[in-house]
Amino acid sequence: MARIAVVAGDGIGPEVVGQARKVLDAVLPGIEATEYDLGAARWHRTGEVLPDTVLDELAGHDAILLGAVGDPTVPPGVLERGLLLKLRFAFDQYVNLRPSRLWPGVTGPLAAVKPGEVDLVVVREGTEGLYAGAGGTLHRDTPAEVATEESLNTRHGVERVIRDAFARARRRERRKVTLVHKTNVLTHAGSLWSRAFAQVAAEHPDVTTEYQHVDAAAMFLVTNPSRYDVVVTDNLFGDILTDIAAAVTGGIGLAASGCINPEGRYPSMFEPVHGSAPDIAGKGVADPVAAVLSAALLLDQLGHADAAARVTAAVATELAGRTPGAPLRTDEVGDRLAGYAVA
Amino acid sequence: MARIAVVAGDGIGPEVVGQARKVLDAVLPGIEATEYDLGAARWHRTGEVLPDTVLDELAGHDAILLGAVGDPTVPPGVLERGLLLKLRFAFDQYVNLRPSRLWPGVTGPLAAVKPGEVDLVVVREGTEGLYAGAGGTLHRDTPAEVATEESLNTRHGVERVIRDAFARARRRERRKVTLVHKTNVLTHAGSLWSRAFAQVAAEHPDVTTEYQHVDAAAMFLVTNPSRYDVVVTDNLFGDILTDIAAAVTGGIGLAASGCINPEGRYPSMFEPVHGSAPDIAGKGVADPVAAVLSAALLLDQLGHADAAARVTAAVATELAGRTPGAPLRTDEVGDRLAGYAVA
Ligand SMILES: CC(C)[C@H](C(=O)O)[C@@H](O)C(=O)O
Ligand SMILES: CC(C)[C@H](C(=O)O)[C@@H](O)C(=O)O
Repeated sequence: MARIAVVAGDGIGPEVVGQARKVLDAVLPGIEATEYDLGAARWHRTGEVLPDTVLDELAGHDAILLGAVGDPTVPPGVLERGLLLKLRFAFDQYVNLRPSRLWPGVTGPLAAVKPGEVDLVVVREGTEGLYAGAGGTLHRDTPAEVATEESLNTRHGVERVIRDAFARARRRERRKVTLVHKTNVLTHAGSLWSRAFAQVAAEHPDVTTEYQHVDAAAMFLVTNPSRYDVVVTDNLFGDILTDIAAAVTGGIGLAASGCINPEGRYPSMFEPVHGSAPDIAGKGVADPVAAVLSAALLLDQLGHADAAARVTAAVATELAGRTPGAPLRTDEVGDRLAGYAVA
Repeated sequence: MARIAVVAGDGIGPEVVGQARKVLDAVLPGIEATEYDLGAARWHRTGEVLPDTVLDELAGHDAILLGAVGDPTVPPGVLERGLLLKLRFAFDQYVNLRPSRLWPGVTGPLAAVKPGEVDLVVVREGTEGLYAGAGGTLHRDTPAEVATEESLNTRHGVERVIRDAFARARRRERRKVTLVHKTNVLTHAGSLWSRAFAQVAAEHPDVTTEYQHVDAAAMFLVTNPSRYDVVVTDNLFGDILTDIAAAVTGGIGLAASGCINPEGRYPSMFEPVHGSAPDIAGKGVADPVAAVLSAALLLDQLGHADAAARVTAAVATELAGRTPGAPLRTDEVGDRLAGYAVA
């Protein structure tokens, strides 16, 4: 039986993760879950972000389910670099998977886009690019100060995530992959991405391909998001594009994500895209749908495609039945979702 | 009298620039304009992108008006690096100014945003960051290939563009500046930007300030674009955010931009954000509004604020009178705009 590590985290993290576990237990009874106390609260209390011993323990699990970490009192970078990115890099989670659907029942901000019309997934590279942490500062706080950030891209890292994108496209109806980069300015990294993409594309004649600059893709996500099926892109572009995709499909309140090590050599991690939302924490009003959809990605990654499909269908039922603007109770939503998933 | 260099360029470039010149001549008779043949056509014919002699001649003008350069047959990077970016860097055009308004008469894609509600300007840094061209490739086309791109940020470059943003905010009603970066991941460059921003902000107690991560800003541009007044950001983030801002305000067909050397030591350059649109070139149906609004930015930069305001008002009249979806003729729009501007 699957052994998962649960990092509920801060703010609304524990509330939404609670519902995700409720749903997981319903569709796959017997999951072994171990809770880990990480995030802003632990850092405030002990100064620890991610002790090596905890990292080692996490490595022994099949997957990690994370709620949200952080609060405004933690300096920028501490939990991002020390916890989230550390896990992505330590566990070689090179596929950052972010599906976006405009679900029936959900009103997106775009006047011309109807529910059901958007169903895309961004396969964002997760272990390279500008996230490598290869930067420096000289002459700090003087007029001569210079600060650098380096984007590191390897054939190894780029090719494997592109392969993953094509493999996912093959399992989808439209079988289309869009490469997004900025080859006209970032000519070195852009060339590497383009050449690797062309090579992998040649091995997949059944998959349609296209290329777009990141600025154009950002625009088309707003004017015509339904044109996308699978989008593969680098770490930073993926960060930005997935928030746009979330925005046009009803907000990050519904957006799920997985940081995946496809080979399963290390645990993959699943988390809602939203943050800890301290302003509504503890009130029982956070929408757990993103956390529950993240649990569905977890199930899929662990080979339980049927259970994953049942959870996704439960979310569809829940959202189709909602009255726009009506208040919700976190635990009631969780109860309903668990019910739908086993019905 | 102002001496401007005109680079009409490729595709619809000459068509829309023709209208911009018509309007310029109407509001400021006697402008001296010299045409320069640069772009894809010249490159195909002669292999030249921007000869040094032409660069020297351009330097002798008060401003450059550019239509659009490029076509799909030119390899990526040739005209971008060789012409557009070369001009930005050679002429130290460190302010890349991109206003976005949802004009009355224009239907944006966002259901909840009404015309008149969005009026923001992005002040994008234009001479640093990932656009520095500091990248390299090793072991090309082998499994060991690595490609880098370096973002270079100097206190000098960052502080001056932030100062420009605050100066512009002071001339606007809301007097608000939003810094956009990714300080939680790009900790070195992010820290430099944040510290420079805090220092300049302290000197402008009459200006409201806020900070947002680029992914959040991309999202809010879609869900709530009217919250922004002046946005200051780095070169690449600005590239992406301005295309989103253009998309939510009716498309890049209306988006103007200026690459500005505020001190006037070198000529500033003004151009529509749209490209050469080869698919509709030569048909006389391209909308010249973005080129005309770029000419208004040119007038403003050269100290003709009144003439600039008349051109902007002419565009407002034109757009308010349009029937959504009705076809337009490039030269008729130009005639109308010139007429409104001097009425
Ligand atoms: C918190 C931050 C490090 C992270 C990222 O930039 O990847 C977040 O924005 C995300 O998209 O998961
Ligand atoms: C053509 C390209 C070099 C340019 C940029 O990236 O700056 C364009 O996208 C723009 O926004 O002006």
